[in-house]
Amino acid sequence: MELSLKNLAAAIKADLLRGDENALFGGVSNLSDATPLQLAPFTSDGYLEQLKNTRAGAVLAGRGIDSAAVPAGAALLLCDDPEMAFLDALNIFHAAEKPRPGVHSSAQIDPTAKLGADVFIGPNVVIEAQTIIGDNCQILAGAAIGPSCELGENCVIHRNVVLYERSKIGRRVVLHAGTVIGADGFGYKFRGGKHVKVPHVGWVEISDDVEIGANSCIDRGTLGPTRIGAGTKIDNLVQIAHNNSVGKHCIICGQVALAGSCTLEDYVVLAGNVGLADHTKMGRGSKAGAKSGVMGHIAPGLEVWGLIATESRSALKSQAALRRLPDLEKRVKQLERLLKK
Amino acid sequence: MELSLKNLAAAIKADLLRGDENALFGGVSNLSDATPLQLAPFTSDGYLEQLKNTRAGAVLAGRGIDSAAVPAGAALLLCDDPEMAFLDALNIFHAAEKPRPGVHSSAQIDPTAKLGADVFIGPNVVIEAQTIIGDNCQILAGAAIGPSCELGENCVIHRNVVLYERSKIGRRVVLHAGTVIGADGFGYKFRGGKHVKVPHVGWVEISDDVEIGANSCIDRGTLGPTRIGAGTKIDNLVQIAHNNSVGKHCIICGQVALAGSCTLEDYVVLAGNVGLADHTKMGRGSKAGAKSGVMGHIAPGLEVWGLIATESRSALKSQAALRRLPDLEKRVKQLERLLKK
Amino acid sequence: MELSLKNLAAAIKADLLRGDENALFGGVSNLSDATPLQLAPFTSDGYLEQLKNTRAGAVLAGRGIDSAAVPAGAALLLCDDPEMAFLDALNIFHAAEKPRPGVHSSAQIDPTAKLGADVFIGPNVVIEAQTIIGDNCQILAGAAIGPSCELGENCVIHRNVVLYERSKIGRRVVLHAGTVIGADGFGYKFRGGKHVKVPHVGWVEISDDVEIGANSCIDRGTLGPTRIGAGTKIDNLVQIAHNNSVGKHCIICGQVALAGSCTLEDYVVLAGNVGLADHTKMGRGSKAGAKSGVMGHIAPGLEVWGLIATESRSALKSQAALRRLPDLEKRVKQLERLLKK
Repeated sequence: MELSLKNLAAAIKADLLRGDENALFGGVSNLSDATPLQLAPFTSDGYLEQLKNTRAGAVLAGRGIDSAAVPAGAALLLCDDPEMAFLDALNIFHAAEKPRPGVHSSAQIDPTAKLGADVFIGPNVVIEAQTIIGDNCQILAGAAIGPSCELGENCVIHRNVVLYERSKIGRRVVLHAGTVIGADGFGYKFRGGKHVKVPHVGWVEISDDVEIGANSCIDRGTLGPTRIGAGTKIDNLVQIAHNNSVGKHCIICGQVALAGSCTLEDYVVLAGNVGLADHTKMGRGSKAGAKSGVMGHIAPGLEVWGLIATESRSALKSQAALRRLPDLEKRVKQLERLLKK
Repeated sequence: MELSLKNLAAAIKADLLRGDENALFGGVSNLSDATPLQLAPFTSDGYLEQLKNTRAGAVLAGRGIDSAAVPAGAALLLCDDPEMAFLDALNIFHAAEKPRPGVHSSAQIDPTAKLGADVFIGPNVVIEAQTIIGDNCQILAGAAIGPSCELGENCVIHRNVVLYERSKIGRRVVLHAGTVIGADGFGYKFRGGKHVKVPHVGWVEISDDVEIGANSCIDRGTLGPTRIGAGTKIDNLVQIAHNNSVGKHCIICGQVALAGSCTLEDYVVLAGNVGLADHTKMGRGSKAGAKSGVMGHIAPGLEVWGLIATESRSALKSQAALRRLPDLEKRVKQLERLLKK
Repeated sequence: MELSLKNLAAAIKADLLRGDENALFGGVSNLSDATPLQLAPFTSDGYLEQLKNTRAGAVLAGRGIDSAAVPAGAALLLCDDPEMAFLDALNIFHAAEKPRPGVHSSAQIDPTAKLGADVFIGPNVVIEAQTIIGDNCQILAGAAIGPSCELGENCVIHRNVVLYERSKIGRRVVLHAGTVIGADGFGYKFRGGKHVKVPHVGWVEISDDVEIGANSCIDRGTLGPTRIGAGTKIDNLVQIAHNNSVGKHCIICGQVALAGSCTLEDYVVLAGNVGLADHTKMGRGSKAGAKSGVMGHIAPGLEVWGLIATESRSALKSQAALRRLPDLEKRVKQLERLLKK
């Protein structure tokens, strides 16, 4: 696919400051790798060196740019938000190659399941009894969707994903390969020297516009739902245990684990490998730094960090002081010597 | 399914203290969510507020309860162990919808494999040569069981589980979706600037009544077995590396990792994201707190915690002192000033 | 399979110091478990006790061994590198039971895909459009390979592995069960209270002789590749995020996570559950200890450790001092008291 610079600028709502409006462009890249047939974005002064040396045929930048910093041969497009305009350009040139609707002959679909309009069902997909698939969904190869599930419109369920029975999935949800939704929570009662299983009869509810990475696990609730709020984004290898309630528009990075019955309010951010103890509550917009262990109630907006997480700045000060601790021990020893005299 | 209060009480061996014994009940829930047609458990004084406000038709409680605290409209059932009686009620109302025995037409079963009586083999299951499946097993959609495996009676193998060749699985074992049993251990010898693979010719042995969560990985031994003892429960995303020996009735929470050749005696508890170094030994009933890094030998019954785990109480004292460390530095500075004078 | 001691010695290039050269051997094991029909290796003085008590029919040792320490009934083979000679013996007796070439009737192979010579394609494998599979590859049951992928010769793709579109895999690459290659990176722009997805149009490139464990995830790059260098070995449940560049011959242990855009030079070693922040650079041969959180630039050859990793020896000293910190507080308190007087 090729687009004239004029049409490209119009499509991403940018203004052409300089350059041949009829020149043809065939794609996008970053400043370092772009060819003369590609558009590249300049989104931060951290990339000034790359800008100076770029071979890109056109540069997309914010209105405040010093145009003299852009190589003379490159066209220059300006807009208010070059990051977003660049995403638009990305989507234009690399429109996800959505598979054509259809049901592969090898898919195993229970006769009581209902498929919406224009769905794509890939090879070896399994859809079990009473499950409802919304319009325009794409279910890719090898995904196994248990009985009595519901998927809203425009979901993408990647290869080898598993949904246990009664999972409820909203609209425009993306589940990446190997993710497991709705396995039993990890609950046992200890009696007579044995761990007796607590039956898990709940389910998982995932709201609209959630995306979940590869090989993550969202366990069902014991009696009711485990909930993931609208617009929340979850990375790979994340564990969300039973009875959690995750709010809207949260960011949950790779290898995070929520133990049972936690509550995340909206806009919580959990960095990589954060762990939450049972019944932790995190207020709206609170954040936990990488590898933190969080428990108790975290106030809205608070940033915490540490193996037993506390307010970030003080925790980081303590961590810095820890590096000086062997020296502090020596200083105390010296004081003790002085006082003995 | 509906049950009269009288029959429900009998089935869970509870005594009816008050309420209409002919009233019909259709399910169970917790105190907050239960309807007048449901039974809810009261198992801890921490739920007194919920008890006061419950709409449950009947409350199940221990014999010591102050019956005045239960809303007047609710029936009251008493028993010695309300937690266990509630599990019984759960199992009655939500008896796992066990699929009817049968082999799905799309399953790929090697002619040399042997299937026990009354097994359920779901869509797209693969069972390879010489593998033996015990009576009453359920193998759900997309599970792939390699050659020469053995499964005891009454196992449940969830969707898209993988068993490598020669895995030995006991009776009543549950493996949740996406779990991988028997992959090669991570062993290499460094020669001539390269990592040369150590062939792994061992296998995995999982004893009776083990349950393993979703997307966990149990690697085979190098020459012999990696062992998981009877009654041990393992959560999601857990890594058990080659040559480990895990005892009976252990609890291994989400994202735990055991490096190679560790030994867990019986009743060990590992909280979330604990890691064990190679050759760690943990004595009977010892415990490691969340996110601990454990090495060496841990005495029976000992509780440890920390990035390099030591006895928990002292480790937590050190952690608390770490928070005061920047202040301690100031105090030492002040002492040094005073002494200089 | 049985081999005379003479032929076994020749095959692994060891010298027969004592024993009946015509005695037949049927396998290998370790010193503790070996039978009189098996060969066992003695590779470290740490195993002297096991050596004394071994029932092995033959012992394989380095040339420096005191032959008097080997039980009188055992034959003795000597060589320069008994670890490597033992791997040779392992490979002889347990030659991986490579499945016979052929395409299972249940495999779903797009007509535009190209299969090399002598490939094995197992039950329920999916290979999508335009994908190229090299000679002698083994694709095991349930693996799902997306469109436009390329696999070099002699790869082994285990059960239920997923490759997203355009993944490029070198020669002799082994991907263990459940691993996901090429899922979208975790990238969003926050606009108008929502996280807007950054389309990921890049891919994953895995070079020759890489082995990746079970249920690991390698995300595709945003615009270009995420790269794994030749000879690098990756364990289970590892997360390699978008735009990473991992060098040659690195060792990446279980549950490691690399956030985006990191660079590992060659021969880097990351112990279990290490996490790298965005844009971390680790120099050639540098190492991070278990559970470290690493950020910034790590010099070549440096060993680091800690929640915010610093040079290992000093970090471990600080950690040791942390254990003494409650005591140090008491000592400072005592000094303050003395000075008050």
